[in-house]
Amino acid sequence: MSDVLSFVDSNLGRFRAEMYDFLRIPSVSAKAEHNGDTRRAAEWLADHLRAAGLEPSIHETPGHPVVLGEWRGAGAGAPTVLIYGHYDVQPPEPLEEWESPPFEPTERDGRVYARGSADDKGQLYMHVKALEAHLRTAGTLPFNAVVLAEGEEEVGSANLVPFVERNAERLACDTVIISDSNMYAEGMPSVLFSLRGLAYFEIRVKGARSDLHSGQFGGPVVNPGNALAKIIASFHDADGKVAVAGFYDDVAEWDVEARDQIRSLPFNVDAYKKDLQVAELGGEKGWTTLEKLWIRPTCDVNGLLCGYTGEGAKTVLPGKAMAKVSFRLVPTQTPEKVKKLVEAHLKKVTPAGVTVELVELHGGRPWKAKVDARLLEAASKALEEAYGAPAVLQGEGGSIPIVVDFEEKLKASALLVGFALPGCNLHAPNEWFSIDSLEKGIGALAILYGKLG
Amino acid sequence: MSDVLSFVDSNLGRFRAEMYDFLRIPSVSAKAEHNGDTRRAAEWLADHLRAAGLEPSIHETPGHPVVLGEWRGAGAGAPTVLIYGHYDVQPPEPLEEWESPPFEPTERDGRVYARGSADDKGQLYMHVKALEAHLRTAGTLPFNAVVLAEGEEEVGSANLVPFVERNAERLACDTVIISDSNMYAEGMPSVLFSLRGLAYFEIRVKGARSDLHSGQFGGPVVNPGNALAKIIASFHDADGKVAVAGFYDDVAEWDVEARDQIRSLPFNVDAYKKDLQVAELGGEKGWTTLEKLWIRPTCDVNGLLCGYTGEGAKTVLPGKAMAKVSFRLVPTQTPEKVKKLVEAHLKKVTPAGVTVELVELHGGRPWKAKVDARLLEAASKALEEAYGAPAVLQGEGGSIPIVVDFEEKLKASALLVGFALPGCNLHAPNEWFSIDSLEKGIGALAILYGKLG
Repeated sequence: MSDVLSFVDSNLGRFRAEMYDFLRIPSVSAKAEHNGDTRRAAEWLADHLRAAGLEPSIHETPGHPVVLGEWRGAGAGAPTVLIYGHYDVQPPEPLEEWESPPFEPTERDGRVYARGSADDKGQLYMHVKALEAHLRTAGTLPFNAVVLAEGEEEVGSANLVPFVERNAERLACDTVIISDSNMYAEGMPSVLFSLRGLAYFEIRVKGARSDLHSGQFGGPVVNPGNALAKIIASFHDADGKVAVAGFYDDVAEWDVEARDQIRSLPFNVDAYKKDLQVAELGGEKGWTTLEKLWIRPTCDVNGLLCGYTGEGAKTVLPGKAMAKVSFRLVPTQTPEKVKKLVEAHLKKVTPAGVTVELVELHGGRPWKAKVDARLLEAASKALEEAYGAPAVLQGEGGSIPIVVDFEEKLKASALLVGFALPGCNLHAPNEWFSIDSLEKGIGALAILYGKLG
Repeated sequence: MSDVLSFVDSNLGRFRAEMYDFLRIPSVSAKAEHNGDTRRAAEWLADHLRAAGLEPSIHETPGHPVVLGEWRGAGAGAPTVLIYGHYDVQPPEPLEEWESPPFEPTERDGRVYARGSADDKGQLYMHVKALEAHLRTAGTLPFNAVVLAEGEEEVGSANLVPFVERNAERLACDTVIISDSNMYAEGMPSVLFSLRGLAYFEIRVKGARSDLHSGQFGGPVVNPGNALAKIIASFHDADGKVAVAGFYDDVAEWDVEARDQIRSLPFNVDAYKKDLQVAELGGEKGWTTLEKLWIRPTCDVNGLLCGYTGEGAKTVLPGKAMAKVSFRLVPTQTPEKVKKLVEAHLKKVTPAGVTVELVELHGGRPWKAKVDARLLEAASKALEEAYGAPAVLQGEGGSIPIVVDFEEKLKASALLVGFALPGCNLHAPNEWFSIDSLEKGIGALAILYGKLG
């Protein structure tokens, strides 16, 4: 075992303790009441980048700050690797469904439960520790390293692209590595070939001037709750396809090899349904479950709010209704075009008697991996060495909008290698991360770094 | 002017002050946190029935108590009149839309603004004051009087019918008078010919075991928010009719005279739309606005709740979705049959991959007035004397489920005469009552009492 891996091995207890401190900070970027916590997480990270041997800096933005950690010791002739992650987390609600507090990391059955353990503070911190292992033992790395951590990934990364553009020279790199995704399965480490994009909207339907008595006004007055339901129902046809005109125009066809590769992966539909506690799956007809998750677009309700939602019966005809509705996009759809299509659709389907407003809350383009054989091979070997099993190629249904921007703005190739496990409750109560994967993953990254000279 | 009316006239200031004290008690029957307030309202009313010259009693039920006030001085040969009202009120939410606090009666522009001012504490208290005027001046009434006030009208009156059944002998009467409705318009007092019934449900759709990440699971997993929208959209056809099979089977046809009478009432659609701030009206094709309000059934969303409804974007695939949906019924529909029809409908339209539960929260039968010429004439004359304008016959879109029960259990005829004005924000923020109508209404009731010997 190399010095680097010995160092990792003998420091795993300390690494975990530090990571849990990081997870204790409720850096919920979506909520203004947590602004202080979010900044505290940035400062904590900067301190620990310095302790790992990198030069930290905190960069203000109109929102939450960007944290950089740089090590330029490999010199001008060596390649540069940018490691991206985010230190902000999703809101933990509904709180009552957590079995242990979301911001108190709790170990149970080989897992650590905490908001941000998988998405993404835990995975980001694994990189910091793998860098530390090299810098504290060999005292060097075969590449110049830049860690870039933002605090707004969960709210749309509005200030990250401007930051990257302003600092394009400083951030110039050959490779961008991101660990903000899953392995294919326990014991099956993987590298991503694609990400879906996102177009996230709030649909606001307005009816009469105020809430009204449903008996005294029900009948002639158009109900914004019913109108909203009609609008949402119109987004799908009977085959589960998105029924917005033009929506599939930019959906790229995947070649037979890609679809065969997806279909070759072991996937147990019954176990999947059992885990989710559903009797049936749904979605677009004619595609397998993995295809529906990775290479087909969707339209999902994320939230609904209208009228009286408390205890008991209130006979109110609501004055307004709201839905949060998002579309997952696949290459080469864009959120800009989808917004235009949805706007045109709303004009067609919104009943007379109410008005509708479409507000864009979040957007990101889908991504498809460039073929960079050397990078893929290094990643595959590192994963195989650490996990003792060959790495597989997989898609990812979620979105990391910045990937496309990094590749475009920094002229780099992205490598997406994640260590969370399927079912880890991302964006849901009881988010968790496997302690075994945490330990093997730090080793895998340390090995990978050794191959990126 | 009679002594009775002089008494009313010279005591109006005190009557208002007392009524405002009554309105200050937040007797919100739907919320357990207000149980103490609701009881306090019952006790306050009992005290003031005693002060008016009636014998009060408070009767426990499994829920909020029933308050009785009795005066039996007219003797066994005289008729008995039961005056029904309710001392509970709707929840005041959304609080931020009230221009003055809901439980601090505030006079503006000839109106008093307060929750319960129109529905129904204000109107109930007008009867108490009209009774007081007779008992404090003449010292008598031409009939035996029973005031019956419940505290659960806004939550379905579950304990009232059992109370009436248990006390049928004590409550035996010839006439039931209820003031819990509107006049047709300012200066146009009215008597009701019908009420709509109600079948109020909560629809609970359950999907996967918990909220999920909409990127990692969106596609194959059926979304309960989308499923709920599909279910609600299925409740109407393109002509605005309720599309639940069998729903219209029990809808009685109205004769030409009744429809002509409705169509003869002055109704300005443009003013109605302007007041409601809507560009268009909707609802069932082929019926006028008043017909849609009074003699046609409806299906309205009263509330929707699903997923993330806070600030910003949360990419969640919700585990469940809830709607409160109610149907207004017309003779001879019943909530029991409508529930069965809706259950059958849900079986047909609910997508595979989610489960649905229908919970009945509230129900009441519709009512059509019996023809009782003497009673109608007394009411018409009293209203005309007090308001200086002839009384009109009108329907009412809201529901007072107990009316049918009173008529059946007590073998009485109901007279429904209301003093609120259209647009008084019943069940909505900024509920109000006209101070002029409050004063004229007490006079009208005092005159009416004089005619009921």
